[in-house]
Amino acid sequence: MLQGDERIDRLIKEQIDIIQSPSVFSFSIDAVLLANFTKLPKSKTARIVDACSGNGAVAFMISAKTKAKITAIEYQERLVNMANRTIALNHLEDKVEMVHVDYNVVEQYIKPDSVDVITCNPPYFVNNEQSEKNKLDTFTLARHEVTLTLDQWIKQSARLLKYKGKLFIVHRPDRLGDIMASLRQYKIPAKRLQFVYPKANKKANIVLIEAIKNGSNDGLEVLPPITIFDEKSQYTPVVKEMLYGEYE
Amino acid sequence: MLQGDERIDRLIKEQIDIIQSPSVFSFSIDAVLLANFTKLPKSKTARIVDACSGNGAVAFMISAKTKAKITAIEYQERLVNMANRTIALNHLEDKVEMVHVDYNVVEQYIKPDSVDVITCNPPYFVNNEQSEKNKLDTFTLARHEVTLTLDQWIKQSARLLKYKGKLFIVHRPDRLGDIMASLRQYKIPAKRLQFVYPKANKKANIVLIEAIKNGSNDGLEVLPPITIFDEKSQYTPVVKEMLYGEYE
Repeated sequence: MLQGDERIDRLIKEQIDIIQSPSVFSFSIDAVLLANFTKLPKSKTARIVDACSGNGAVAFMISAKTKAKITAIEYQERLVNMANRTIALNHLEDKVEMVHVDYNVVEQYIKPDSVDVITCNPPYFVNNEQSEKNKLDTFTLARHEVTLTLDQWIKQSARLLKYKGKLFIVHRPDRLGDIMASLRQYKIPAKRLQFVYPKANKKANIVLIEAIKNGSNDGLEVLPPITIFDEKSQYTPVVKEMLYGEYE
Repeated sequence: MLQGDERIDRLIKEQIDIIQSPSVFSFSIDAVLLANFTKLPKSKTARIVDACSGNGAVAFMISAKTKAKITAIEYQERLVNMANRTIALNHLEDKVEMVHVDYNVVEQYIKPDSVDVITCNPPYFVNNEQSEKNKLDTFTLARHEVTLTLDQWIKQSARLLKYKGKLFIVHRPDRLGDIMASLRQYKIPAKRLQFVYPKANKKANIVLIEAIKNGSNDGLEVLPPITIFDEKSQYTPVVKEMLYGEYE
């Protein structure tokens, strides 16, 4: 079942075993934050898409929060393969389906104006041809805007969502200006932000964004801050709850 | 020296006595946060402008942080009059000058492309003719975008600033989308944000913004969160320091 340096990690809260690989793809705290930030329709008929799904971590985590089936989109065959083995391992065939396709042309599988909720943990880094990462391996493609730019995943998400459909994003604060400008351009303005600080006295290193198609441009909300570590470098209660479920 | 219901309040940290009026204009925590957030050139020749100055609170507070003279702009004669009496009371004639003019036409006093730093605590509320505030009294004008819209104060600030000049703003998070879009439109993108939460588990109710003329659109920073009250509803140490100076 496992290939190369793959291992099985446990999503404790969701009780799902997920296949990961340190050299190819492992989910990070970003995926956990995004899954917890996302509000889902419970209805079985809701259309839910996890874009840029990687090894499916966000799709698996949110699948516990709805009766609907999650459609997870991933461009890299190696990661689709890993995710499909996680589905088999956990008997999640009715909860998550992987679709192996470039998000830019995903409308061959998913009709425009049809989706209720999209989650997206996209590549964070602007592609820079001068940089050392010209290898274009799986690890690099998942992290850099090589096959999918910020403008592209926002434009495509706006196209897929139905009227008032929601896009939930995890990203880096240094791109927030570009993200908010693109969201506004494609008529899917940011309506809710939540900043994540590694410690209470540090700059934010993660931002969570909820955008609503055909939403109004004003009325932005900024949710309470999430701090990852306390003064003793232990996870704060809110993060423990995200990772391990009911926690006291 | 005092008129009507005016009173004198002490800016403890700056050791300045400021004339206020509960019915006309009193500064709030917003002004304190803006003054503390603002980074100023120390040089005596720097050109520093406090737009939408009201009774001059921000101008007086930041005057302690620089050798340069602050030019404070206020459209309402009643508030200019109050601020001028505060200047006389504290002998601040060399530190702050009030200019009584509409910010939209301030270039008759201040040359475009000449200013190093602008601070701005603008009216927060969109003007709505249906609302009850058609009285257009001093109190209302200072709070609603009647004579100065969000787009106008950003456009004018961009015009006045020199290359790489900085605009420091305090505002409400619900307008952040509009503010960031206007800043980007006038080539003075937001480069630094700081969110202020009334308590650690509450939504942000204030945002501080640093924008840089001719800055790049990426590389936004989100500074550590400011929380106003602790669990016992006492000011947190960082807020005490802002209000009272050195604090332990």
